Amino acid sequence: MPKHLVLNVNLLTAGAHPAAWRSPGGNPRALIDPAHFKAVAREAERGLLDAVFLSDAVMLKGGGAGMPVSSLDPAVAVTVMAGATEHIGFIASTSATFQEPYHIARTFASLDHVSGGRVGWNVVTTRDRGAAANFGGPPESGERVLPPREQRYARAAESIEVVQALWDSWEDEALLADPVSGRFSDPARIHPIDHRGAHFQVAGPLQVPRPPQGRIPIVQAGGSEGGRELAARYADAVFTAQHLIPQAAEFAADIRRRAARYGRDPRGIKILPGVNPIIGSTVAEARARKAELDALVDDASRVRGFAAFLGLDPGSLELDRPFPPELVPPLGDTYGSEGFTGALRTLLAERPLTVRELLERGTFHRDLVGTPEQLADSFQEWSDAGAADGFNLQFARYPDHLTDFVDHVLPVLRRRGLVRSEYTDRTLRARLGLPRPASRYAPQEVSR
Amino acid sequence: MPKHLVLNVNLLTAGAHPAAWRSPGGNPRALIDPAHFKAVAREAERGLLDAVFLSDAVMLKGGGAGMPVSSLDPAVAVTVMAGATEHIGFIASTSATFQEPYHIARTFASLDHVSGGRVGWNVVTTRDRGAAANFGGPPESGERVLPPREQRYARAAESIEVVQALWDSWEDEALLADPVSGRFSDPARIHPIDHRGAHFQVAGPLQVPRPPQGRIPIVQAGGSEGGRELAARYADAVFTAQHLIPQAAEFAADIRRRAARYGRDPRGIKILPGVNPIIGSTVAEARARKAELDALVDDASRVRGFAAFLGLDPGSLELDRPFPPELVPPLGDTYGSEGFTGALRTLLAERPLTVRELLERGTFHRDLVGTPEQLADSFQEWSDAGAADGFNLQFARYPDHLTDFVDHVLPVLRRRGLVRSEYTDRTLRARLGLPRPASRYAPQEVSR
Repeated sequence: MPKHLVLNVNLLTAGAHPAAWRSPGGNPRALIDPAHFKAVAREAERGLLDAVFLSDAVMLKGGGAGMPVSSLDPAVAVTVMAGATEHIGFIASTSATFQEPYHIARTFASLDHVSGGRVGWNVVTTRDRGAAANFGGPPESGERVLPPREQRYARAAESIEVVQALWDSWEDEALLADPVSGRFSDPARIHPIDHRGAHFQVAGPLQVPRPPQGRIPIVQAGGSEGGRELAARYADAVFTAQHLIPQAAEFAADIRRRAARYGRDPRGIKILPGVNPIIGSTVAEARARKAELDALVDDASRVRGFAAFLGLDPGSLELDRPFPPELVPPLGDTYGSEGFTGALRTLLAERPLTVRELLERGTFHRDLVGTPEQLADSFQEWSDAGAADGFNLQFARYPDHLTDFVDHVLPVLRRRGLVRSEYTDRTLRARLGLPRPASRYAPQEVSR
Repeated sequence: MPKHLVLNVNLLTAGAHPAAWRSPGGNPRALIDPAHFKAVAREAERGLLDAVFLSDAVMLKGGGAGMPVSSLDPAVAVTVMAGATEHIGFIASTSATFQEPYHIARTFASLDHVSGGRVGWNVVTTRDRGAAANFGGPPESGERVLPPREQRYARAAESIEVVQALWDSWEDEALLADPVSGRFSDPARIHPIDHRGAHFQVAGPLQVPRPPQGRIPIVQAGGSEGGRELAARYADAVFTAQHLIPQAAEFAADIRRRAARYGRDPRGIKILPGVNPIIGSTVAEARARKAELDALVDDASRVRGFAAFLGLDPGSLELDRPFPPELVPPLGDTYGSEGFTGALRTLLAERPLTVRELLERGTFHRDLVGTPEQLADSFQEWSDAGAADGFNLQFARYPDHLTDFVDHVLPVLRRRGLVRSEYTDRTLRARLGLPRPASRYAPQEVSR
């Protein structure tokens, strides 16, 4: 029996397509509409998927000209969705760059309690200067500048250490809640963490008992050297931009090699490339659905968006001329996304592509256009090649494109034994196949 | 027709009484049980109360020996309760000392959107050294010490300025969400705030459109000079510890005088003393209910709790000897709560009280023991004397003591016309009688 694919749905407010909100069937107020979040979570649960994924930013991107894909506080959005569902997990992004680890530990422990063990933390670092400008301190501390990438990743790594220690600060047996003896807790099993590091000094313990999952799963989504190291050391799942099987397989192998060096089980890390599924009963119908959305965005603003993403002058790009490979930001550039630019570099090394072809392919993640059978074939091919343990699915529009996937693609995957036919495990952690570790502070010698 | 009292219920996990969790009818796991939060919110809504109030701390108080009264992230708890109710408001405490104003603005704007305009922010500053120890930075920044009170209040005031500017950064008309024209927003109505102050440099705009209430109500709960000034400048409601009518009336008059000096309408600020209602069909029955709970806490630990609260050596107190007034921490002490110690000083100036009598009276807030008619009489007396516009109600145990209040006291208040008989206004702000201001960035000359 084949291993199940991990399938998450990346909820980008109205949808991954910039015209989603204004197209027929789209929700023009999706960004602040709790009913929208609930509808997406319920559809994902009807499809027996693993988790709803929330990306995040701590700034208004693009000045609000289009619908922001990150608006509501992710903790609020997750709580809304958890209240409307029973099984589906939630992976929320929180930047370690501009939030204190004590707050992160408390928020995720709280989400884990109210959802019954269904959350994961996608650890991101912030590379936007616009975000840094929202977190400036006293004038004497100088202009708030973004720390260089290595320092951001070093802070993120230390943040994870602090957060995990705080989750462990109550052993599982610390909460007695015994009305007969009147003992609320066993204070000997509640521990200060006394963390003293390069970025943080945190005493602990946390004010929230150990989360139901014990250790909440860690997800990581950066493709740079620092991101890969962070993933190898801490991540239970990696969200990655990959357009071609050989490169994805090499990426997966690289992460696993690095994980083994940290003494971890390399198979314990799920590699999840992003995919934009575009479904039709024929390829032509699928393409027509995408074209309908594309027609609602004028070419100039698409080129502008693409140029802004790469930090290029829009005047340097022409829609129907080959994209000049030398314009791809170099590796090691401090503020770009190495995951995305690396994927782009790989694509262009294969063959020249026009700007229009790049935009049609899906510039950030791979567009996967076709019939349900074709989509299932592709998933299976990537999985068989060791290029993916599953996928982060980004739908052009919510909830209806997700509904199509649930109704048409998942039955094919289910017939092939590639996805579950019911929820069995109760927690996200168990569903990812991960054991539940005891607190680091628990006495090791006791066998129970 | 008399003015309605504002009535909030202060949800202290299992209840205000330290034995609540272990007593019959108590919830031993209240602190992490979403069903508990929902049950309390629904009962408060059944009683047509104004809001559920959540106090907060960012540390584990008392080492977890008893049930913490602040455990879950308040944003998570409010979202859980908002999802289970339609009308009741929620006032959540967030410390301006250890959280960035951008995060505060985003979280409360998010809560306001998902609740449909039902939240308020109780602005607190943190005076616990144990909390400071959870937020230490790099070693070169030195031991994290709590800034003195004046500096904490100066930071809080600036934090409110930044947060309110961020809430205004989208004018009401900024969000167009018009699928026909394809205009998501009017960028001319989305504004950077470019705040440059002594504590913060924040660029804005916020990534969340203007909250439904426009300006989310501000609540303040400190009794010191700095706290009173903060209340007078910004607060829409003040939560205060008051044991006697003349002092409470003088406190209310003081806040209103100060507010007038800031050019505000002094009647726009609601003064809400804390009260612990203990209800019985006779006074004796009410006392017996309290005694039952008291019997579950041994005297030594009650004295220890009281001594810890005042920063005293427990050995300096004897249960049945008069409490020495000279042990009350002096005014101006940096880390004590001046609201609580001031109330205690006032009480002891009236007549000597033993430690036991103080504990029985309700040391932090006023115990109000009696029949429904007696409770209603007291509320009316305080209101008529200008000592209160309403009360923050702390019940010994949730939800059943709140249920008794809803079933027995509220009908008496309703017959007297002192509380509403249905919810009419949709938002917490409107219910507090406050107008909805336009964004500070909106063009003033336009009449609509």
